[in-house]
Amino acid sequence: MDRKIVLTIGRQFGSGGRDIGQRLAASLGFGYYDKELVTMAAKESGLCPEVFENADEKASDGLAHAFTMGLSYMGMFTPHADILSNEGLFKIQSDTIRNLAEKESCVIVGRCADYILRDNPDCLSFFIHNNTEVRVQRVLEMHPEITVEQAKDFMAKTDKSRAAYYNYYTNKTWGNAASYHLSINASVLGIDGTVKYIQHLVKTKFEL
Amino acid sequence: MDRKIVLTIGRQFGSGGRDIGQRLAASLGFGYYDKELVTMAAKESGLCPEVFENADEKASDGLAHAFTMGLSYMGMFTPHADILSNEGLFKIQSDTIRNLAEKESCVIVGRCADYILRDNPDCLSFFIHNNTEVRVQRVLEMHPEITVEQAKDFMAKTDKSRAAYYNYYTNKTWGNAASYHLSINASVLGIDGTVKYIQHLVKTKFEL
Repeated sequence: MDRKIVLTIGRQFGSGGRDIGQRLAASLGFGYYDKELVTMAAKESGLCPEVFENADEKASDGLAHAFTMGLSYMGMFTPHADILSNEGLFKIQSDTIRNLAEKESCVIVGRCADYILRDNPDCLSFFIHNNTEVRVQRVLEMHPEITVEQAKDFMAKTDKSRAAYYNYYTNKTWGNAASYHLSINASVLGIDGTVKYIQHLVKTKFEL
Repeated sequence: MDRKIVLTIGRQFGSGGRDIGQRLAASLGFGYYDKELVTMAAKESGLCPEVFENADEKASDGLAHAFTMGLSYMGMFTPHADILSNEGLFKIQSDTIRNLAEKESCVIVGRCADYILRDNPDCLSFFIHNNTEVRVQRVLEMHPEITVEQAKDFMAKTDKSRAAYYNYYTNKTWGNAASYHLSINASVLGIDGTVKYIQHLVKTKFEL
């Protein structure tokens, strides 16, 4: 197949979005990229993965940015000053995502991939959400040591951070229906049912 | 069929949401309710339809509310004071929607029906959006006398008004993915393709 299809997935924390992305990729024979993008961007840039991990899906830290810019102005850190800012890391990761989209059909989770690939006609963007009680249950399964209240707090904070990152780097709003081609509450059909339903859209749209 | 299935549709102005709702209802053999709700609510309450039309999908006018409440306090308009406020009209229309949902399987467009029927397990909520250029084109087909700029302005104002109405009467956010079971950009599959795709979800979910 010459055409490279890219499916991007935004997701509420605990919604099952990552599971859906993995199973969708497996069922279509597509590549799957989530945290893998961090290692790839590090390898391509020659920077250590920790730099990307620390900035992963976090909005720019104005102070840190000013600090590296300041060091750059003072003649220190010049070669990497821009790269070390979150904006610089975002640019590197964006190139990694664009290269990937040219090379193979794949599913990319998070990291503003829908915005980075907005001009790609073979890219479809998805947002996965879920009922709060289902999300709490899923988070507790991953972290049995925490309480329901802590799980809710964790969910709220993670989503707030993802929204800040998305809204900072794109001209769209995280979680807003109009920001994605399709948004679905995964509790309507369950995880596997949602995978099949999304697959149906992809196959209809791209005549697979 | 004993089970009454209700599909609610929220929509961006010019997105094709109403067309999709009508065709979806026709294809499933369901009733279709949009503006019809105004006449029904009027008939059930004994008030004239114009009262409902003026308040249709508009957020409460605080001043008018205070005014009718004031008249009520002064002993005037007592029997209808609460009814004549937008909140009162919303309550009447909510009863109309609940009665409808008990009587027949149907598609209901707008009017916070998704929120009113939030505890109904046989209710699925949809939000239809579309690319701006497609929406402008659709609005111009309906109103060939206006300019592109006027169409955009009309779209923005109508959606702002719908959002204000929805956000006022529900604890959710209009156009936010998490407020609906499924949100879709109708340009991905076109109007008829979107109808079929939604129908597929309804048939899968309710095993029709």
